[in-house]
Amino acid sequence: MTGQVEELDRPAETSTGDEYVDLTPEYAREIFDALGEDDSNTASELLSELHFADIADLLGWASSNQRAQLVELIRPDFDPEFLTELDDELREEVINLLGTDVVAEAITELDSDDVVEVIEDFDEDEQRELLGALSDIERARVEEALSYPEYTAGRIMQRELVAIPDYWSVGQTIDFLRSAKSLPDDFYDIIVVDPRYSPVGIVPLSRVIRTNRPVLVRDVMESEEMRTVLVTEEQENVAHLFRQRDLISAPVVDDSGRLVGVITVDDVVDVIDEEYEEDMMRLAGVGEEDDLSSAILDTTRSRFTWLLVNLGTAIMASLVIGMFEGTIQQLVALAVLMPIVASMGGNAGTQTLTVAVRAIATRELTSTNAWRVIRKEVAVCGLNGLAFAVLSGAVTWFWFGDVMLGAVIGVAMIVNLLFAGLFGALIPLGLERAGIDPAVSSSVFLTTITDVVGFFAFLGLAAAFLL
Amino acid sequence: MTGQVEELDRPAETSTGDEYVDLTPEYAREIFDALGEDDSNTASELLSELHFADIADLLGWASSNQRAQLVELIRPDFDPEFLTELDDELREEVINLLGTDVVAEAITELDSDDVVEVIEDFDEDEQRELLGALSDIERARVEEALSYPEYTAGRIMQRELVAIPDYWSVGQTIDFLRSAKSLPDDFYDIIVVDPRYSPVGIVPLSRVIRTNRPVLVRDVMESEEMRTVLVTEEQENVAHLFRQRDLISAPVVDDSGRLVGVITVDDVVDVIDEEYEEDMMRLAGVGEEDDLSSAILDTTRSRFTWLLVNLGTAIMASLVIGMFEGTIQQLVALAVLMPIVASMGGNAGTQTLTVAVRAIATRELTSTNAWRVIRKEVAVCGLNGLAFAVLSGAVTWFWFGDVMLGAVIGVAMIVNLLFAGLFGALIPLGLERAGIDPAVSSSVFLTTITDVVGFFAFLGLAAAFLL
Repeated sequence: MTGQVEELDRPAETSTGDEYVDLTPEYAREIFDALGEDDSNTASELLSELHFADIADLLGWASSNQRAQLVELIRPDFDPEFLTELDDELREEVINLLGTDVVAEAITELDSDDVVEVIEDFDEDEQRELLGALSDIERARVEEALSYPEYTAGRIMQRELVAIPDYWSVGQTIDFLRSAKSLPDDFYDIIVVDPRYSPVGIVPLSRVIRTNRPVLVRDVMESEEMRTVLVTEEQENVAHLFRQRDLISAPVVDDSGRLVGVITVDDVVDVIDEEYEEDMMRLAGVGEEDDLSSAILDTTRSRFTWLLVNLGTAIMASLVIGMFEGTIQQLVALAVLMPIVASMGGNAGTQTLTVAVRAIATRELTSTNAWRVIRKEVAVCGLNGLAFAVLSGAVTWFWFGDVMLGAVIGVAMIVNLLFAGLFGALIPLGLERAGIDPAVSSSVFLTTITDVVGFFAFLGLAAAFLL
Repeated sequence: MTGQVEELDRPAETSTGDEYVDLTPEYAREIFDALGEDDSNTASELLSELHFADIADLLGWASSNQRAQLVELIRPDFDPEFLTELDDELREEVINLLGTDVVAEAITELDSDDVVEVIEDFDEDEQRELLGALSDIERARVEEALSYPEYTAGRIMQRELVAIPDYWSVGQTIDFLRSAKSLPDDFYDIIVVDPRYSPVGIVPLSRVIRTNRPVLVRDVMESEEMRTVLVTEEQENVAHLFRQRDLISAPVVDDSGRLVGVITVDDVVDVIDEEYEEDMMRLAGVGEEDDLSSAILDTTRSRFTWLLVNLGTAIMASLVIGMFEGTIQQLVALAVLMPIVASMGGNAGTQTLTVAVRAIATRELTSTNAWRVIRKEVAVCGLNGLAFAVLSGAVTWFWFGDVMLGAVIGVAMIVNLLFAGLFGALIPLGLERAGIDPAVSSSVFLTTITDVVGFFAFLGLAAAFLL
């Protein structure tokens, strides 16, 4: 299965389907060992067996010393596409190590959308320097792409595309494809446009080949299933559209409906990755720029803010406890048990919150079914509240030999879990309605509520009924 | 931009790029209102304007009553692909409402991989019933797919593909494509095989069209960039491969290297979705089957287990507090302040944990850089520990007027955050090494540690130095 024609006679078992070696942690360690012994020949040889995407991964695993050594080894002969495979933070470091000249030269070999990806995080002066080696046409394309806001369709679309008028026959189309000089390297769909250069349909290439020459393109194109995307559309919405409609490609148009680019499903895969990572990180109070390869101080600073907010809310919960100092003084068991009520509320609420944040992202949860979902979540948490009221009540009774103390913790548990379900659903819905990403800061609001309600219900009931 | 040829003369502004109406919450409400008034004519009319993927979304937003009404309205004339757009739980409900006969008939119009998606969650008897209406060939294909384990390449691949021998010329290939009877509807890449039917390369269709007829296919095919996938490979690894190598399609082979199917990037999008959802849900202790449309009791039961584990760990933390009942009795301020230490540890640890779980999933974190990442996380948490030691110490001194109490909370804070960073990284790495998904149950281990360490450090230091 290797790609070598001469090797066709070998038995299938010895082949790998790939000319490259797979990058495993063991293989990486061999390279790092060679670097450690300053054996650049061995390291170079091992490196030359790797696909450029694996070299990018390897740089991510390396320490900053090893990274500098690796960059020197790949400098003489690297595939420019390697630059597109690096994470943002890492790319900046590698580009600084390689030097602007080398990178400016390398990006002349990339497609315009890849150039945009490589340079978009640099400031304008650096961008101008990096773009210096590009041809005027190429530079104009990149600068146009950079003129669209980040995270919009204009940034992820390809400008290289094949468009034909709808009055052409299949034969004319094939002749055009065979003779045209400046087509993209590989393409899969042809976009059919009207005289205003507005897309009216899409034809998969396979259909062009399989249809008789005299047939008109307009008679074999897909038009019902085609969806156009506005160039300023947010990439999140583009990703949703592709997933929901199972699209392979979509033409991108400007305000006047003119075709300006095309987005294909493989561009969308990266967007889906980014959006998910954002949700997951935001739920935990971690910044998007918080990368394994970020500097310690940057990471510390980016996480500090969230922890500071959390300190504020923890102090708020402590103030609630402080209201009951006298009660605790009389019955220290309350101090022993109170974290249980708060923690169960926090966990039950987080379950609801996560389901709601996810369902809002996939648009399964909208204003049409919000109340039904809220009612369901309250019911679910209420039922689990009942179950854990019995369990925690029994444990408390057994532990402290006080049935009333068990009853108090049970009732507090039910109250707190009801609030957890209610606010676990309400908070993300409210943030979404206010135009704020429901993933960001939902969980800090929620645990504030479950801590405050948990401590207040438990200690308050104890003060009222036990003393 | 509409697909209608006759409409080409309209100005671009009046066109929509799509024959369907967009499903908005407002549009859904109109339909639900019509259903509420038993006005099935209006409801049917509104429904007929929607794309089948939107109808699937609409069913997700509907109550179970509305769902039954909607299914009756679409029953006479629905696009069978609609069934592939439903979530698992919802699909089961809809198939039961439609009845086995209708569904068996509908799936005769689907590709084999879509049939697999629709029926894979039913038990064997039901599957046999649903497959009854399929042709023998089609049924054999579906049954073969079902013979591969769930979540493997064999389940997501398409069996419909175009394979040609590598000794063909481009001309022969084009003639074959134009004359062959049983090719897939649309296809984008042609797979080139050797005499053993092992894939040796891939040719994008655009390259076939643009190359002169006498050229051999083997001279224009991609072989270096081709990656084959084993039919039993886990879908998670397939998704990783596609993302890492930016693949458009990959041939799937059996144990002996024979071509059995093809996976394209659009199949992988759904896998990426599933894998992410799994990670996100598992981190919050929510089961994958926990869907908005699940029954209340099912959801309650599926969340109960996690909460039960959490009750156990909360009790463990309480036992630690119980060791210091005497200390708290003498100084109730300790009970007021102790949740702050525990909560800060939990949050700092969750930040580290989330970064680590995510980095393990994207393979940015492997055994090659594990120790460096652990050291970094401990350093970051230690630095934030210092900052919050000062802050919480100052607040405590100011609040209780006791500088020693402030010192004790400060030291406890540093200790707890160091543990949080250490175990936030160690736990997912340890689970991964033990072959367990690092997302599952990491957070419960972690908060147990930060609660126990937090309470023990704070109350223990207080007992030693304050009394």
